[in-house]
Amino acid sequence: MSDAKIRVGVLGARGKVGSEICKVVEATADVELVAAIDAGDDRQELVSAGAQVVVDFTHPDVVMDNLEFCIANGIHAVVGTTGFDEERLTRLEGWLAANPAAGVLIAPNFSIGAILMMRFAAVAAPHYESVEIIELHHPTKADAPSGTARRTAELVAAARRDAGSAPMPDATSTSLDGARGADVDGVRVHAVRARGLIAHQEVLLGGPGETLTIRHDSMDRASFGPGVLAGVRAIAAHPGLTVGLEHFLDLG
Amino acid sequence: MSDAKIRVGVLGARGKVGSEICKVVEATADVELVAAIDAGDDRQELVSAGAQVVVDFTHPDVVMDNLEFCIANGIHAVVGTTGFDEERLTRLEGWLAANPAAGVLIAPNFSIGAILMMRFAAVAAPHYESVEIIELHHPTKADAPSGTARRTAELVAAARRDAGSAPMPDATSTSLDGARGADVDGVRVHAVRARGLIAHQEVLLGGPGETLTIRHDSMDRASFGPGVLAGVRAIAAHPGLTVGLEHFLDLG
Amino acid sequence: MSDAKIRVGVLGARGKVGSEICKVVEATADVELVAAIDAGDDRQELVSAGAQVVVDFTHPDVVMDNLEFCIANGIHAVVGTTGFDEERLTRLEGWLAANPAAGVLIAPNFSIGAILMMRFAAVAAPHYESVEIIELHHPTKADAPSGTARRTAELVAAARRDAGSAPMPDATSTSLDGARGADVDGVRVHAVRARGLIAHQEVLLGGPGETLTIRHDSMDRASFGPGVLAGVRAIAAHPGLTVGLEHFLDLG
Amino acid sequence: MSDAKIRVGVLGARGKVGSEICKVVEATADVELVAAIDAGDDRQELVSAGAQVVVDFTHPDVVMDNLEFCIANGIHAVVGTTGFDEERLTRLEGWLAANPAAGVLIAPNFSIGAILMMRFAAVAAPHYESVEIIELHHPTKADAPSGTARRTAELVAAARRDAGSAPMPDATSTSLDGARGADVDGVRVHAVRARGLIAHQEVLLGGPGETLTIRHDSMDRASFGPGVLAGVRAIAAHPGLTVGLEHFLDLG
Repeated sequence: MSDAKIRVGVLGARGKVGSEICKVVEATADVELVAAIDAGDDRQELVSAGAQVVVDFTHPDVVMDNLEFCIANGIHAVVGTTGFDEERLTRLEGWLAANPAAGVLIAPNFSIGAILMMRFAAVAAPHYESVEIIELHHPTKADAPSGTARRTAELVAAARRDAGSAPMPDATSTSLDGARGADVDGVRVHAVRARGLIAHQEVLLGGPGETLTIRHDSMDRASFGPGVLAGVRAIAAHPGLTVGLEHFLDLG
Repeated sequence: MSDAKIRVGVLGARGKVGSEICKVVEATADVELVAAIDAGDDRQELVSAGAQVVVDFTHPDVVMDNLEFCIANGIHAVVGTTGFDEERLTRLEGWLAANPAAGVLIAPNFSIGAILMMRFAAVAAPHYESVEIIELHHPTKADAPSGTARRTAELVAAARRDAGSAPMPDATSTSLDGARGADVDGVRVHAVRARGLIAHQEVLLGGPGETLTIRHDSMDRASFGPGVLAGVRAIAAHPGLTVGLEHFLDLG
Repeated sequence: MSDAKIRVGVLGARGKVGSEICKVVEATADVELVAAIDAGDDRQELVSAGAQVVVDFTHPDVVMDNLEFCIANGIHAVVGTTGFDEERLTRLEGWLAANPAAGVLIAPNFSIGAILMMRFAAVAAPHYESVEIIELHHPTKADAPSGTARRTAELVAAARRDAGSAPMPDATSTSLDGARGADVDGVRVHAVRARGLIAHQEVLLGGPGETLTIRHDSMDRASFGPGVLAGVRAIAAHPGLTVGLEHFLDLG
Repeated sequence: MSDAKIRVGVLGARGKVGSEICKVVEATADVELVAAIDAGDDRQELVSAGAQVVVDFTHPDVVMDNLEFCIANGIHAVVGTTGFDEERLTRLEGWLAANPAAGVLIAPNFSIGAILMMRFAAVAAPHYESVEIIELHHPTKADAPSGTARRTAELVAAARRDAGSAPMPDATSTSLDGARGADVDGVRVHAVRARGLIAHQEVLLGGPGETLTIRHDSMDRASFGPGVLAGVRAIAAHPGLTVGLEHFLDLG
């Protein structure tokens, strides 16, 4: 065991994502899995095992308890569990103020590809007349469009607003209902559902004589790994509360 | 002048498509442009020049007169002009019955790529659980979805009906208005409009663990050329009325 | 147990593909898994369980023994095991001549998407000046290009030869070594290798002003299921030897 | 004529690109075409017409003379003409030192889409294990791979070097010659040539379970317009020599 390895505990270690995270941590040279905890296990094990960073993919019902415990014990936390509203973030900030050395990262998305896609779409948007989003998912998905597609549309719309972009050209005068997709903040979003698809998104930007397309294909839960590792490596240097993995990545 | 060359006259020779057709005919070894006629010119020139086949890209107002003239003079016709309804086709059949050696091809689409895309989509559809269509066009297009996308959806729906396919899976329960596209005969069709695009269509077919995508990109009016030439070469061997270039192509 | 269900035995039932096939058979209404056999098990169980069709995904070393047993017992066989050369096919035909009611399907590829892609590429090829193939796979693949890409190129080349197609246009005069891909029978094939990819192939066909692209994305072993089931359903009606699942599919 | 409009002269105004630039300038509200000059015309007209910025798409043989004239007359220059080596840039810097108010932009690429693609590829590269480039062009192109593809590969390689990225995974052990593309600084580049294509490039980045694809499709010379206008608008605020339009764009 090298002192240089980051000592990691996983909360929700027997869940779908959590068990995957355990494997990734075990397979990576500069981190070390020292505790794998799930419902029914004793969190105190994190302390006795000397965990420096906890990765939490659990449930909105238990994550606040987990984080209170971690912060109180000076353990940094990288959190993929959902359900954080303003009230919860404010409570977290209170706990962190009392333990200023601890760092907590709350990230709705650990996919580096999705983060880059959203970032590039927002940077490119003011340079183009038209932007549309096509997201494609498995047919068992309940919502359309996806949360990532909505978020991308909002970021594109904000970037265009800031740049004073003109409205997008669209001469459609005869249309079947729904043909032109959903309108999210003025950005058209199309949701495709088909067996065989997993999770894919394309942002199409168009100007005179050219188009730029940014596409993200997510084929496997393993795609969370590099993002979680990036969070684990960076969190000690970022005490306090951070929302969004993008703040830890070099995005140019 | 070689006897082996097919002697071609073009009607609508100074129009956008017609002038392009003239160039293509002149640039092709086995055909010969013997008459280029437009509004104001004397159609009799077709006869005196010995035209064997006429290509007509004119206007619904004049195309019936043109065809009556050609059939009466034993000149075959390859027609891209629009506006043919049942009544017009019946009239054409009457003229052709009186001149059984003449052949007329009425084709709504001379793009071989579009014809192949529609054909392949219909052949593949019964082998897949899901089929969706995405068409992408320049933002000055008035209708959404495109005529080709509607036609493709109808062909896919018919093929699935004939095969007794089950309804496509779709668990969407929360949706923004329009997100899932237009419903054409049970097939979802999405219309993207962006500056820089020309005319593109993608048919996505999905089954367990795999997808098949057939995409047609039409960048230039020149794409009509090979289809028109295929019609010109085949028409003499197909007396009577033919609707649809696909009947002259070897589609497997 | 309904008499209408096809009674299926699986050979190689504990292998990667075989175990997947067992699941697919169990999840499908019109077939029934009556025997799941692997190395060490008694093949006689197939007979006592009344198997009508056997699916064999085993090993070149044992598949001939398996097939001799099945044919002798009047059990049809759908075979995904590799390693069939002329000598083996001839031996199979001998056994089948002695038991003319039995049917054997030897299929190098059970992916309906891959079969359709190859078929469509061959049908479309004579209609285009240019055809190139791009295959994209995970970086642990040993061969480049893939077997499917090579086979597609051969089919395209044969279709172009039969149609008397002119050589493809290519003005490249200055090239880095390898930039233009591998030459398979005059068709350029490009092999992309990247982490995150699974098994993908694109056939790009180009003519004046347009391109047609046929793309197959295979994301999961589950994609074999529909093809194997198609074989199981059709084999009883096809006594004797068949090589290639395409002979059982309606490909237009 | 509004005082707010930038007064633009075009050199090479009757050339393919230059004539397109003239149209773009005339169609744009905040700029004004005051002189359209080509071989044989008197450059003095630029001065008498009060041109503030010159756009030069001429020829390596005459561009240095043009720039010496512009700088001496305090006219800014936006230059798409090729052939600038170290020696020429040094000479330019000398002339600009003597006329420090003048600005010259030398840009090998005015396509904003191409610039964004290269930028995004370099930013994303260190976050992925694998990066490959596929460029697709019309079959009359002489070089393979394209200059843009080479440049992209160099930028990706540099970004990976700076980040200390590990070599890309590639288990290929059996390969047809050329199948894996050209090696540019350790980045594989594939060049596709087909009739119907214009100028396209795809950068594929892959990590565990996901891929990110950045694709640029250039369909028309008109795609130069927005980049040239961006140069024209920014040059007055950037006296001295600038190489590369990216320095004038907000790239996040």
